[in-house]
Amino acid sequence: MSDELVARMDRLESRHHIEALVSNYCHGFDKRDYERFLSIWWDDCVWKIGPPFGDFAGHDGIHEAIHEVLWPAWAQSQHVTSNLVVEFTGPDTANGLCDVDCMGLLTGSTEATFVGATYKDSYARRDGIWRISERDVTIHYFNQFGGTTLSAPEG
Amino acid sequence: MSDELVARMDRLESRHHIEALVSNYCHGFDKRDYERFLSIWWDDCVWKIGPPFGDFAGHDGIHEAIHEVLWPAWAQSQHVTSNLVVEFTGPDTANGLCDVDCMGLLTGSTEATFVGATYKDSYARRDGIWRISERDVTIHYFNQFGGTTLSAPEG
Amino acid sequence: MSDELVARMDRLESRHHIEALVSNYCHGFDKRDYERFLSIWWDDCVWKIGPPFGDFAGHDGIHEAIHEVLWPAWAQSQHVTSNLVVEFTGPDTANGLCDVDCMGLLTGSTEATFVGATYKDSYARRDGIWRISERDVTIHYFNQFGGTTLSAPEG
Repeated sequence: MSDELVARMDRLESRHHIEALVSNYCHGFDKRDYERFLSIWWDDCVWKIGPPFGDFAGHDGIHEAIHEVLWPAWAQSQHVTSNLVVEFTGPDTANGLCDVDCMGLLTGSTEATFVGATYKDSYARRDGIWRISERDVTIHYFNQFGGTTLSAPEG
Repeated sequence: MSDELVARMDRLESRHHIEALVSNYCHGFDKRDYERFLSIWWDDCVWKIGPPFGDFAGHDGIHEAIHEVLWPAWAQSQHVTSNLVVEFTGPDTANGLCDVDCMGLLTGSTEATFVGATYKDSYARRDGIWRISERDVTIHYFNQFGGTTLSAPEG
Repeated sequence: MSDELVARMDRLESRHHIEALVSNYCHGFDKRDYERFLSIWWDDCVWKIGPPFGDFAGHDGIHEAIHEVLWPAWAQSQHVTSNLVVEFTGPDTANGLCDVDCMGLLTGSTEATFVGATYKDSYARRDGIWRISERDVTIHYFNQFGGTTLSAPEG
């Protein structure tokens, strides 16, 4: 097979690896699986969440954001990502754009909070592994549904 | 082309076939297209919905769940799946993890009900066809928006 | 590589190009990026939104729908697409089915409006480029959350 066709197949596979990063961000965060969450980030990553949560850098920053800020702030959450567009800038680098709707319960609140946001991402492949280099978050809305809570059906 | 490259292309195609199973679950269920819904399940499948709906097995169980339990319970529904992660365990078997938000109207209710859940799936390929072997549902929330109904715009 | 394998790789790439059309519909519309939005449509396209917005044809129709009807009607919006199923009818033509949840603020309203809809699409490739030939919209619900607004966190 020609080099060009090998490169095309590699790109198709890379697209799926990147999609899995975006999905595992949600699975790791919402299911409180820190190992899964950390595995999507390069150790020199930048995670710019902005207000009200702040910006974080590196694996130390990820640890702080998750364990000291976000998981304490949310009693429960579910992120639904959508509209992922990946643009490759080379064989080992790509940019991504996607949207997310999140439904959750803030700690101490009995009312459902819903958030809509957009993620602008940079991904890089090193030693054959794709991870996130940078994720910039723009929050469009962050509000509560008055009188509406979140609860699972009784078993 | 080498056997290894043929296997890589087959895996990329399998990923898309599996994604279509996950999507057609929603299209079949919400649009009340039983033929489409049934086509995603192996005849020895297991569908563990859990409370409040129960667990079901085989095509007979799918028929019972749909026609005797779920479609009677829901006057209207729309499932939005997201975050699909597929892990292949062999050329013809894979596991999947995805999340869903569902908005609907329970039969007899005038208030919108929203549900958030996670699906843990097993898929198998037999005679060249991918279908779902097992889907385990974990419901995170199942609530109503007080004072909010669902209705289409008038034509 | 055999012609059959080249065709299979082309189809996998086409699937991703079509997925990007569906995503860029949302990014272009919600982020008010008209160039991105227009780039997904063939100049002889049909966009059947139906009530309450109407049907539109061609790039002139897209311009009218966006600039005279939809962007004036919505102060803010976020579309989340899901469940995309693509069926190819030839190397250069395909049909698509997907669902969307949209959260937004109608102009002049302080209450969040949510919309659930299904898109039936036709895509065509001309001169190597995939675009949308037709999108038929079926709106399932179009309602407001009483007492709930949309607002971003303060910086």
